Amino acid sequence: MSDQINRVVLAYSGGLDTSVILKWLQQTYNCEVVTFTADLGQGEELAPARAKAELMGVKPEHIFIDDLREEFVRDYVFPMMRSNALYEGLYLLGTSIARPLIAKRQVEIAKLVGADAVSHGATGKGNDQVRFELGYYALAPDIKVIAPWREWDLTSRTALIAFAEQHQIPVPKDKRGESPFSTDANMLHTSSEGKVLEDPWDEVPDYVYSRTVNPEDAPNEPETITVDFERGDGVAINGVGMSPATLLETLNEMGRRHGIGRLDLVENRFVGMKSRGMYETPGGTIYHLAHRGIEQLTLDRGAAHLKDELAPRYAELIYNGFWFSPEREMLQAAIDHSQEKVSGTVRLKLYKGSVIVTGRKSPNSLYSEKVVTFEDDQGAYDQRDAAGFIKLNALRLRLLGRRDR
Amino acid sequence: MSDQINRVVLAYSGGLDTSVILKWLQQTYNCEVVTFTADLGQGEELAPARAKAELMGVKPEHIFIDDLREEFVRDYVFPMMRSNALYEGLYLLGTSIARPLIAKRQVEIAKLVGADAVSHGATGKGNDQVRFELGYYALAPDIKVIAPWREWDLTSRTALIAFAEQHQIPVPKDKRGESPFSTDANMLHTSSEGKVLEDPWDEVPDYVYSRTVNPEDAPNEPETITVDFERGDGVAINGVGMSPATLLETLNEMGRRHGIGRLDLVENRFVGMKSRGMYETPGGTIYHLAHRGIEQLTLDRGAAHLKDELAPRYAELIYNGFWFSPEREMLQAAIDHSQEKVSGTVRLKLYKGSVIVTGRKSPNSLYSEKVVTFEDDQGAYDQRDAAGFIKLNALRLRLLGRRDR
Amino acid sequence: MSDQINRVVLAYSGGLDTSVILKWLQQTYNCEVVTFTADLGQGEELAPARAKAELMGVKPEHIFIDDLREEFVRDYVFPMMRSNALYEGLYLLGTSIARPLIAKRQVEIAKLVGADAVSHGATGKGNDQVRFELGYYALAPDIKVIAPWREWDLTSRTALIAFAEQHQIPVPKDKRGESPFSTDANMLHTSSEGKVLEDPWDEVPDYVYSRTVNPEDAPNEPETITVDFERGDGVAINGVGMSPATLLETLNEMGRRHGIGRLDLVENRFVGMKSRGMYETPGGTIYHLAHRGIEQLTLDRGAAHLKDELAPRYAELIYNGFWFSPEREMLQAAIDHSQEKVSGTVRLKLYKGSVIVTGRKSPNSLYSEKVVTFEDDQGAYDQRDAAGFIKLNALRLRLLGRRDR
Amino acid sequence: MSDQINRVVLAYSGGLDTSVILKWLQQTYNCEVVTFTADLGQGEELAPARAKAELMGVKPEHIFIDDLREEFVRDYVFPMMRSNALYEGLYLLGTSIARPLIAKRQVEIAKLVGADAVSHGATGKGNDQVRFELGYYALAPDIKVIAPWREWDLTSRTALIAFAEQHQIPVPKDKRGESPFSTDANMLHTSSEGKVLEDPWDEVPDYVYSRTVNPEDAPNEPETITVDFERGDGVAINGVGMSPATLLETLNEMGRRHGIGRLDLVENRFVGMKSRGMYETPGGTIYHLAHRGIEQLTLDRGAAHLKDELAPRYAELIYNGFWFSPEREMLQAAIDHSQEKVSGTVRLKLYKGSVIVTGRKSPNSLYSEKVVTFEDDQGAYDQRDAAGFIKLNALRLRLLGRRDR
Repeated sequence: MSDQINRVVLAYSGGLDTSVILKWLQQTYNCEVVTFTADLGQGEELAPARAKAELMGVKPEHIFIDDLREEFVRDYVFPMMRSNALYEGLYLLGTSIARPLIAKRQVEIAKLVGADAVSHGATGKGNDQVRFELGYYALAPDIKVIAPWREWDLTSRTALIAFAEQHQIPVPKDKRGESPFSTDANMLHTSSEGKVLEDPWDEVPDYVYSRTVNPEDAPNEPETITVDFERGDGVAINGVGMSPATLLETLNEMGRRHGIGRLDLVENRFVGMKSRGMYETPGGTIYHLAHRGIEQLTLDRGAAHLKDELAPRYAELIYNGFWFSPEREMLQAAIDHSQEKVSGTVRLKLYKGSVIVTGRKSPNSLYSEKVVTFEDDQGAYDQRDAAGFIKLNALRLRLLGRRDR
Repeated sequence: MSDQINRVVLAYSGGLDTSVILKWLQQTYNCEVVTFTADLGQGEELAPARAKAELMGVKPEHIFIDDLREEFVRDYVFPMMRSNALYEGLYLLGTSIARPLIAKRQVEIAKLVGADAVSHGATGKGNDQVRFELGYYALAPDIKVIAPWREWDLTSRTALIAFAEQHQIPVPKDKRGESPFSTDANMLHTSSEGKVLEDPWDEVPDYVYSRTVNPEDAPNEPETITVDFERGDGVAINGVGMSPATLLETLNEMGRRHGIGRLDLVENRFVGMKSRGMYETPGGTIYHLAHRGIEQLTLDRGAAHLKDELAPRYAELIYNGFWFSPEREMLQAAIDHSQEKVSGTVRLKLYKGSVIVTGRKSPNSLYSEKVVTFEDDQGAYDQRDAAGFIKLNALRLRLLGRRDR
Repeated sequence: MSDQINRVVLAYSGGLDTSVILKWLQQTYNCEVVTFTADLGQGEELAPARAKAELMGVKPEHIFIDDLREEFVRDYVFPMMRSNALYEGLYLLGTSIARPLIAKRQVEIAKLVGADAVSHGATGKGNDQVRFELGYYALAPDIKVIAPWREWDLTSRTALIAFAEQHQIPVPKDKRGESPFSTDANMLHTSSEGKVLEDPWDEVPDYVYSRTVNPEDAPNEPETITVDFERGDGVAINGVGMSPATLLETLNEMGRRHGIGRLDLVENRFVGMKSRGMYETPGGTIYHLAHRGIEQLTLDRGAAHLKDELAPRYAELIYNGFWFSPEREMLQAAIDHSQEKVSGTVRLKLYKGSVIVTGRKSPNSLYSEKVVTFEDDQGAYDQRDAAGFIKLNALRLRLLGRRDR
Repeated sequence: MSDQINRVVLAYSGGLDTSVILKWLQQTYNCEVVTFTADLGQGEELAPARAKAELMGVKPEHIFIDDLREEFVRDYVFPMMRSNALYEGLYLLGTSIARPLIAKRQVEIAKLVGADAVSHGATGKGNDQVRFELGYYALAPDIKVIAPWREWDLTSRTALIAFAEQHQIPVPKDKRGESPFSTDANMLHTSSEGKVLEDPWDEVPDYVYSRTVNPEDAPNEPETITVDFERGDGVAINGVGMSPATLLETLNEMGRRHGIGRLDLVENRFVGMKSRGMYETPGGTIYHLAHRGIEQLTLDRGAAHLKDELAPRYAELIYNGFWFSPEREMLQAAIDHSQEKVSGTVRLKLYKGSVIVTGRKSPNSLYSEKVVTFEDDQGAYDQRDAAGFIKLNALRLRLLGRRDR
């Protein structure tokens, strides 16, 4: 890349890889690096990131460490959950939904510090590079993007570590040997992929799981909980009101304890290949089912079925990195419009890896015992109407049958 | 109904309700009744149906008791499962998928015996009347349909039993009192609804479940099984080849043992109301996940995502009774086209109510370790391609960003 | 219908049929009739409706004649046009879109005058009964609906006229004989169907057309016009700002002169049968193409394609009478979200039945000559990016090809 | 590109650009070039292509000139037309549908002559490069693809002509100056874009049109024609049976005469930019409407509406170059399934740029005068059924209304 870069904002975790990137950027582009470390509830201490960045010469005022947990859950996870989106029928999109927020904040910082470029540590084979960069370009169309993994020649672990040592970047012991898999984590989930997971026939080894107990080790007694919703979003657990992030954290702890939310998946990446991953989404799995539970009672059929038809597309957009696209926003407008009355309480049972809805109630319930009852409904529903309903629904099939059968 | 009916084919279970209907038809229409009893693996003995029908004057040659189990699984359950259909995101359509087969056979018998009408025992509030009758009309556009529950005045349990006693129809003891809920069963599932289930906040009482053990009472050891698929359909369990019905029966037994496939649902009926039901689909739940597992490996992304977008519509069509419709057949043609290479083996773990895929392999795998690997892929994938891929996917977002941001 | 009706609001045109209904309602239900006559630009004088109603004993304060033209175009026609909806690929939904407004106003009047019922003059075979009644029920769930054509025994023209004469209802001469077809008209279109149009092979006779000249008689010179849009809605013609209704009226006059907007269609009714109709939508046809023209320039591809995929469903909802449904509102929310920047000017040429877009410009244009040019673009677009774009789009097809070819 | 190429099959038109490419390939890759010239009815003489290729040293047995017209219409145009696909609501996909056939034949020739690469003359900004290359990769996953416009440095017209002269490639006079626009043609359409068309506000100059007369110069008398269909495909014009290509050619001549099928469009390219093009699709425009006409009569509503919902996606797939993809094939399977009974005759009127359907008839008609008639239908349809139909369709809206209004 021949363009002159003056200042670049790097999505910086403080780990080995992004530390190497930090140095490599300084060296390759002879530019000032600004680091941005997001707290999305990934469960790592972020303080060391500051010291490390300073050590590599980043100016104190160029080190950004932001707690984005509430924003993450409130403005990204919850809106997505309103759609009941599942990528390829099963995956709760834990990594995908975090990337746009990081990209957005990174661009904000770039504007703040007058940077002309942004950079990230995602590899050239994955979806994350796409998600980051589509976010950058949508929000800052003329920003320069540096993706070191697609540019440099540090293509092996050995080369990377050699570079680190050569530049006095501390290499943690567990990074020296081959890590048996790689992970990404945030408040919604932890994903693991690579190496020991690469053969999709091999069972995921126990040591890969970090966010949930093995269901077999979970309590022998089920736990019953309630989740309250208002306008489509969770607001309380067991009757105790909570902020979005606290609510998700609370469900995470419950899910962890009961071994809930493990998923072994072979999925289709946007870049065209299949990959095998393991996901742990303890709280998200409970939340997803709870949301469906409250919708069952409060959402009209027309709205519900339209949502179900739109959800795969919506999930695909998020997976592919199109959060900041007009079509995602259009779908969101439709989905959000449906959630106004999605309020009430859902009861769920957690037990050894499974979560089931056992009851739901709402002041906005559309369920009418009077209409549906097997007992005498005192005229709430006239069964003879069904005859006409069926006859007219059948009419085209009868005309067809007369022609074809 | 003023039309003269000469001979009517009744979908006859041998139970109290359809026995009353049998008598009521003879009396009301002064016509000959032909009974048709389908064995769909509902787990009841069907022999008594013959004796009862004879007792009420049905001619021996007019009593049809057909074992439709293989046809049911092969031509209805499996084709539906190829779509991964879930009604309203959760329900495996166990009742819906059985109705078209019953209707089809009933119409065949009507043609065989020269009947001019068909009749069924579904009530006027439910979906089943629609499913039966859309099937009848599609396959025999000019047949007369008699739906006693929409016509007669036996609107209370008491009236029904009085009618039965008056006509020497035996009333089983457990039918005298109020049954606390009503059920439908076939090889794919058992559904329960009504009375004790009518308040969607009340937990389903234990005694309602009949097809699965309580997960808490399931074995403390997980069971690992394999399912083999060929062209989208299951063909073997644990390496042992089986017919479709035997395969589903085997999975049912496994699912029952491990408490798998319970679902407490508030759903939207086609006739416009919400109802609350409880479903047990032990084998079907395992099969559904196994099928997704093998598709993950063998189905192209374009095919998989198109299937996911079509599935809610397909599920709705089946739920609403449009199995014999051109649009269901069109979707089936698309779905079936995708299944040619969906062959291979899936490994699953069953444990206390949950079933998870732990591995999958296939001679038709599209998964390429060589392409996806974190290790050096020796040129199988050029990471620089990703830069262009992202740039062109971003182009419209950048043009948009320049205009709007 | 045994229920006691005290006061009913009738959608009253002042014509023979609804006059007969007026009388029949008074007589059959022994109730007070309130008449509501909507001016939707159908091009009839509405004043006589008042006199006729008074003559039949309707109280002066119970006669409502409302000019709804601006509301019709602003709140119904324009929002629909934002979607580019075409029912069955061709029909601009002129009748369908008027019914919800009539129903809404009728229900408002019912609340105003304390009526317990509403009534309309649509027949039992058509879509309009459905559209009216779904509107009534959505807005006033407990209102009683009287549909005389489904209830009475005036099933032949002769019987209807006899009833009219018997009750001193004036019968216009042209209604005595058999009318050769029936029509519906409003500001958006005139539809004709029935009798001489019933054989779909027969060409529509010239005398059926009332809103457009025969293209062969249209001017030999094309006319070029411009339409300005703001946020998705038309605001000016040839640079002259206009209210919605005036704008549509102006386009109607232009379309009429040039023979634009005739459509001979066999369509599928919601009630299950096919019907053949002839539509004249002069201004709407021009507007529809103009709107597409301005969207081409200002709408992002993602938004445009999503709209195109949603449009058939949206059109179906309106055709079937589900304007006041959550799913129509959800789709509207998505569509409206896309229109914020749909502003600019479209130039069109009208000539002997055809209308074509010949140019469009906008301050919000997303078209970039700099990017698209065949000339040197000075780096606005890097053609090498296309290589990577294609390679990654091809990756899954190559993996597939290696397996299958 | 460092890989050694031995033999490359070039899609060769015989024109200046592909002649330069031919020479450039020989020179740059030091390889043998095989030329493939497809006759898709583009209306140019193809014989000179042979002489030119020979002149540049291509072996006679390596010069392929194939008449693909029947295959093009039968296996590409007609299947696409069965879907009623219109890209972005208006465009009949004339260029898009030709590319897969060229790619397929090119790959076949590559296999025949043992070539290891293919090449084409599409630029790096357009869709055609994508369509060609996705076709190549799908059918020959390991073939090498050379796209000279993305590789070479002949980025200006001057450079290209200089290269031509330097290598004794004849430069036609009209290519010396700046051509005012560029075109692509085949039997289905001619497209024009670039230069004088680049400002989307400027009207397309008259001299750009080559396939249709100006409607103002078209005959003053309309022409009425009939098109016969069998199983969804055209088989006869005015009662005269014809092969697919002859039929399309005949419609082209009719359309040309009457100025039919001109389209001025700003469209969204797959590569992310908007472009402005002018299309002439005379016969295709007539055919498209005729096909809709016969479907109106013979296609069930469920099938028709499903087709309408799938068509935008199908069109997008073809436009984007995914003809040889599983998802296009799945949609084709669904579409083709619907066409079995789409047979009959459509009558159309052609007049000064417009084409309208004026009648249709079919032995497979689903239109029933008996059911639809305004006259007494003698019980074919019971209007009272409509009451029940509406009541149950309204039920959910009423429950909703009770809650929300």
